Amino acid sequence: MRIDGRQPDELRPVKIITPYSKHAEGSVWIEVGDTKVLCTATLEERVPPFMKGQGKGWITAEYAMLPRATQTRNQRESVKGKLSGRTMEIQRLIGRALRSVVDLEKLGERTITLDCDVIQADGGTRTTSITGAFVAMTLAIHKLCKEKPLAVFPVRDFLASVSVGVVAGVPMLDLKYEEDSSAKVDMNVVMTGSGKFVELQGTGEEAPFSREELDRLLGLGELGVNRMIELQKEALGPVAELIGSDKARC
Amino acid sequence: MRIDGRQPDELRPVKIITPYSKHAEGSVWIEVGDTKVLCTATLEERVPPFMKGQGKGWITAEYAMLPRATQTRNQRESVKGKLSGRTMEIQRLIGRALRSVVDLEKLGERTITLDCDVIQADGGTRTTSITGAFVAMTLAIHKLCKEKPLAVFPVRDFLASVSVGVVAGVPMLDLKYEEDSSAKVDMNVVMTGSGKFVELQGTGEEAPFSREELDRLLGLGELGVNRMIELQKEALGPVAELIGSDKARC
Amino acid sequence: MRIDGRQPDELRPVKIITPYSKHAEGSVWIEVGDTKVLCTATLEERVPPFMKGQGKGWITAEYAMLPRATQTRNQRESVKGKLSGRTMEIQRLIGRALRSVVDLEKLGERTITLDCDVIQADGGTRTTSITGAFVAMTLAIHKLCKEKPLAVFPVRDFLASVSVGVVAGVPMLDLKYEEDSSAKVDMNVVMTGSGKFVELQGTGEEAPFSREELDRLLGLGELGVNRMIELQKEALGPVAELIGSDKARC
Amino acid sequence: MRIDGRQPDELRPVKIITPYSKHAEGSVWIEVGDTKVLCTATLEERVPPFMKGQGKGWITAEYAMLPRATQTRNQRESVKGKLSGRTMEIQRLIGRALRSVVDLEKLGERTITLDCDVIQADGGTRTTSITGAFVAMTLAIHKLCKEKPLAVFPVRDFLASVSVGVVAGVPMLDLKYEEDSSAKVDMNVVMTGSGKFVELQGTGEEAPFSREELDRLLGLGELGVNRMIELQKEALGPVAELIGSDKARC
Amino acid sequence: MRIDGRQPDELRPVKIITPYSKHAEGSVWIEVGDTKVLCTATLEERVPPFMKGQGKGWITAEYAMLPRATQTRNQRESVKGKLSGRTMEIQRLIGRALRSVVDLEKLGERTITLDCDVIQADGGTRTTSITGAFVAMTLAIHKLCKEKPLAVFPVRDFLASVSVGVVAGVPMLDLKYEEDSSAKVDMNVVMTGSGKFVELQGTGEEAPFSREELDRLLGLGELGVNRMIELQKEALGPVAELIGSDKARC
Amino acid sequence: MRIDGRQPDELRPVKIITPYSKHAEGSVWIEVGDTKVLCTATLEERVPPFMKGQGKGWITAEYAMLPRATQTRNQRESVKGKLSGRTMEIQRLIGRALRSVVDLEKLGERTITLDCDVIQADGGTRTTSITGAFVAMTLAIHKLCKEKPLAVFPVRDFLASVSVGVVAGVPMLDLKYEEDSSAKVDMNVVMTGSGKFVELQGTGEEAPFSREELDRLLGLGELGVNRMIELQKEALGPVAELIGSDKARC
Repeated sequence: MRIDGRQPDELRPVKIITPYSKHAEGSVWIEVGDTKVLCTATLEERVPPFMKGQGKGWITAEYAMLPRATQTRNQRESVKGKLSGRTMEIQRLIGRALRSVVDLEKLGERTITLDCDVIQADGGTRTTSITGAFVAMTLAIHKLCKEKPLAVFPVRDFLASVSVGVVAGVPMLDLKYEEDSSAKVDMNVVMTGSGKFVELQGTGEEAPFSREELDRLLGLGELGVNRMIELQKEALGPVAELIGSDKARC
Repeated sequence: MRIDGRQPDELRPVKIITPYSKHAEGSVWIEVGDTKVLCTATLEERVPPFMKGQGKGWITAEYAMLPRATQTRNQRESVKGKLSGRTMEIQRLIGRALRSVVDLEKLGERTITLDCDVIQADGGTRTTSITGAFVAMTLAIHKLCKEKPLAVFPVRDFLASVSVGVVAGVPMLDLKYEEDSSAKVDMNVVMTGSGKFVELQGTGEEAPFSREELDRLLGLGELGVNRMIELQKEALGPVAELIGSDKARC
Repeated sequence: MRIDGRQPDELRPVKIITPYSKHAEGSVWIEVGDTKVLCTATLEERVPPFMKGQGKGWITAEYAMLPRATQTRNQRESVKGKLSGRTMEIQRLIGRALRSVVDLEKLGERTITLDCDVIQADGGTRTTSITGAFVAMTLAIHKLCKEKPLAVFPVRDFLASVSVGVVAGVPMLDLKYEEDSSAKVDMNVVMTGSGKFVELQGTGEEAPFSREELDRLLGLGELGVNRMIELQKEALGPVAELIGSDKARC
Repeated sequence: MRIDGRQPDELRPVKIITPYSKHAEGSVWIEVGDTKVLCTATLEERVPPFMKGQGKGWITAEYAMLPRATQTRNQRESVKGKLSGRTMEIQRLIGRALRSVVDLEKLGERTITLDCDVIQADGGTRTTSITGAFVAMTLAIHKLCKEKPLAVFPVRDFLASVSVGVVAGVPMLDLKYEEDSSAKVDMNVVMTGSGKFVELQGTGEEAPFSREELDRLLGLGELGVNRMIELQKEALGPVAELIGSDKARC
Repeated sequence: MRIDGRQPDELRPVKIITPYSKHAEGSVWIEVGDTKVLCTATLEERVPPFMKGQGKGWITAEYAMLPRATQTRNQRESVKGKLSGRTMEIQRLIGRALRSVVDLEKLGERTITLDCDVIQADGGTRTTSITGAFVAMTLAIHKLCKEKPLAVFPVRDFLASVSVGVVAGVPMLDLKYEEDSSAKVDMNVVMTGSGKFVELQGTGEEAPFSREELDRLLGLGELGVNRMIELQKEALGPVAELIGSDKARC
Repeated sequence: MRIDGRQPDELRPVKIITPYSKHAEGSVWIEVGDTKVLCTATLEERVPPFMKGQGKGWITAEYAMLPRATQTRNQRESVKGKLSGRTMEIQRLIGRALRSVVDLEKLGERTITLDCDVIQADGGTRTTSITGAFVAMTLAIHKLCKEKPLAVFPVRDFLASVSVGVVAGVPMLDLKYEEDSSAKVDMNVVMTGSGKFVELQGTGEEAPFSREELDRLLGLGELGVNRMIELQKEALGPVAELIGSDKARC
């Protein structure tokens, strides 16, 4: 039995509120247990310099935590004057993951920036950010599509993410903070709606893991991602049907 | 008639939710119209180096906006690598204002850091931050007081803030974004529960203002601050009674 | 009686030397008591990116202190690698104040940068900077006007600034360092030649102030600004007559 | 057949020269094909502040490329004034991987810093860095052990790393630059001498990968790591026998 | 004949005003032609960390130009967020030169910081800074000596500096801006009162120089330094006699 | 007799390997005793903004040390976030020296960047960098010349550099680290193949030096530079003949 009474293969309660923001082109307030993240998608009719003239769009992400999202206060990165390695690692991961399911040519020369701001943290902030950002991004593209019809809806597949890990010798799904802190193995799994891997980041700093443990973690990851995708579908409503289909009638 | 149908001397709807955060010693989610700010208070048993050994506490504040709190996306200050002049000006103002109503000697050698993070902006973010931060700070001090009894409750008076300005020739209270953008005169008023001024910052970059206009703005400011203090009292409940009283029975 | 023998409503001796610099388009060496500031105005035939193509000019200011302008040495901001909040606050104030009396459209697509460098500090450095910078700016515009005739002289009104404050319970004009350090209330007043307010920044961190105290401080501020404007007129000589007049015969 | 004539499961020629540096406690010059990395280990008799007083040591790594290690010149990070996200990600990975096979308590309150500087890059710089840094670290610990006998040799197992990926539909081992650029799936595998995983980082930004592809990549990774560990043994000579054994007679 | 009518071996008019500043322990306003530099010396009863516990003092210097000290405005280094290479080179030179004539052991564990701020620039700002800073430093040490008698006056010899160069084929002393800009060879000479070299920095970027040219430049440098030292003696008055003597009766 | 058995006027063994790098347009691995520097030349078909449209090329240099090039580890400048004054001074020197022997107009609107990275340091890293960078630069220009024939080979003369100094009262050539640390006078000499000076930087921080000592140091410098130029000729082979000649048949 886990610290909060869950089964090893059980997710925490998930809440996806959308739209949340008055200003953003797409926005999602996502809660996974006590982890709360606001994901906003900003669409701009331009691409960064290194992408210019290629007829392709760009998807990028930024990630941050409010200073008191955590048990003790973290100094702001704006005050430190630089991003930490952890922040950069996470936002590169989010951007890469989202790009893997979008047809950038069909998006056209536009940039979508996903801001994932952690309002409260209790484990799994990067995986929650990916799951929420996918919905915010899809909503922003849908808004674009309604205003400037696109030939094809450029989101090719669903995408969600969960954390898995080995805690006290037991492989578990969706670690909360106390579990994450004591996990020997920690893995983030990002998968598509069609069951393929987009990102796999496993680390056994505390204790190397065997092939067998890896296989069990991958199984839990697949299970969790599938459940997350169901919740994304509910949140997206009819927009969900556009994903991966030929229909671009937004 | 104003853009949202209010009278010149009318506040927007105000919502103060407390406590909001799982981790912070004091926390407030405050909404004034569409402006939403999360204020968390962190209490630490130490003071900054320049205060050491004086037997006094310290109150400080940090302020930030989420990148898409605004109509168009603002670059993160962590990415720019430095705080803007506007941010510094605002957080210095919040800190100074809060310190004016706290007896730092009675607080003891402790620091309270108020983080005011604007989740959504629609004018008046700095005044809303002050009004919310006062409540979050008071709650953190109350929590301290319950755990380590203090001889006297160190909050001496209430403190709240509103914006006022001259829009289309008419002095108005609590400007929302569109009003603020077109105001010729813009003033932030911070006052105490006993009707005294703590901070007064008026600027007439677009058009200098006369003594008479100033007097009318000060009147509106006093009106608005008084209403805000009533709402703070409701949010604080019985804790409100400790403010400025001799009773420190927390 | 004040520390240096002045009456509460008395300014320190003021000296305005102009031109001072060999290179700048306008320059003023201003002394108010022991406070000494060099103000230089640089005129450039371009505007910052955010102003381009609007047919309007821009006025901006930078402020700094030499490291040993003060009683103890201050670390250089170039060495720290960033501007302090205080510096940013002051230079934003100077720029805003100057812009309020210049018709930017009549200036044309040009930028005037006022550099206010405090050579020696003894209280009132920001107000002295504004008073001096106004003269340096006016001289630079006059020089421009002689070289490239302007239809109308774009300076609409005089502008000067003084500090006022409550020291030992007495409202006083033009605080020197020791007075400023012990003041309970501190206010900077920026006014025009026609007696209107451009900026009002009052702070009662040590002790909130009443409406009555505010009224007395405003009276002293008006008195001080008027005397400063007389001194500006003397320093400007015949150029003073162009300010606010229809005559642009430079 | 691959671009350089190798089989899909074939490593490039590997050269490990040690010791290389006159000054460092441990040093390795490692070449994998045209990729050349200098790894130096610095041993210091202190730990970072967050580790103090725990009786444990610390292993950390820094990674950089010379500006012209690559086909076109890269701007120095010292000139940019900050580390890129890529650099931080890589050096965090190297440090984490090395710590996983060292008993930090047996190391005592000491820090070993591994500097991995890429002299020339042709794909696989991070995996080459890990493989080389393991040897440099082991030599530095051996040197320590000879000077200040340790009860147990604190390196518990061998550790090496290789890259694998799917290029033109074929899973391949040890990608050189041209292969890496065109790979749809890219994975870095870090494993121990006993065949366990320490880090697994797979990314399918260009094309998500199936469970079957993952299994084949893991197989290639295991093969490559085993060969690398044989080469590490040769380079370490008799020191290799101390790893993971009870004998600490250095 | 030179641009300003001087002979090749003639200095510009020199003015040394001392004391200049109300706050600094030693201060000099020095003008060499139109070059004006304010040099202040700050004495502190502590040494930087790397000097602690050695019983020796430290002399260091900082150099800066006001933004409009030059013909066109230079961006502030505080705004750029870093010191330029030129600034660092100059302030390292000033500090090194001053330390060469001070007995740091006799100074005791104290730091003297020389701030050389260029108010107006017309060539030779670094050599003028050295010449002025020597006087400011000596005055600060004299002040110290009067307050806390030192066994021996720690300034061992005079020190001054001039620039020399080859302009239009003619070796010249003390180049002003226009000469400096067109010089093929440019050299800064720092010498002591006893005619020895402390620093020699010659550069022939535009045209390499022969041994013969070097010899003539060194002759002019010696001449100029000797004249500067006479002016330093005048400015120092009776304090000059303490330099290099056994008498420490300040 | 010197610490390593050399005569006062004897260089350490010198090794120049070229080409060294797979990617750079010109590259040199140079060893002077235990000092090892990798110099790479990058040729780009553009000039920095301040050079645009003048029909001239630009030569610039960057210098860095690997963290463990030295006896104790130096923190990376990329981690500190800025270049030290020493680094800036050195790279400005290298660039200036190289430009002095290149006809920038004949080079055309191109930039050559010399990266001098110290792999191992044992005194004389800046002089070794200049000597090596000259060869790398010449090779890059030769490569250019072969691909896009130039009317005249733009390298006008040879250029090399050595350090000299007074150690234990004896003027010596090519100081190694221990000598450099204890030298009272330290001088870097950069000269051309025709025996002229390009840069002369002498410092007597520990003890001022006389004209006679200077003369002896200059003699040693000339001797050392001449030997270095012979070694450059060997390394360059037939390319050496193009330097300073009318023949541009590359």
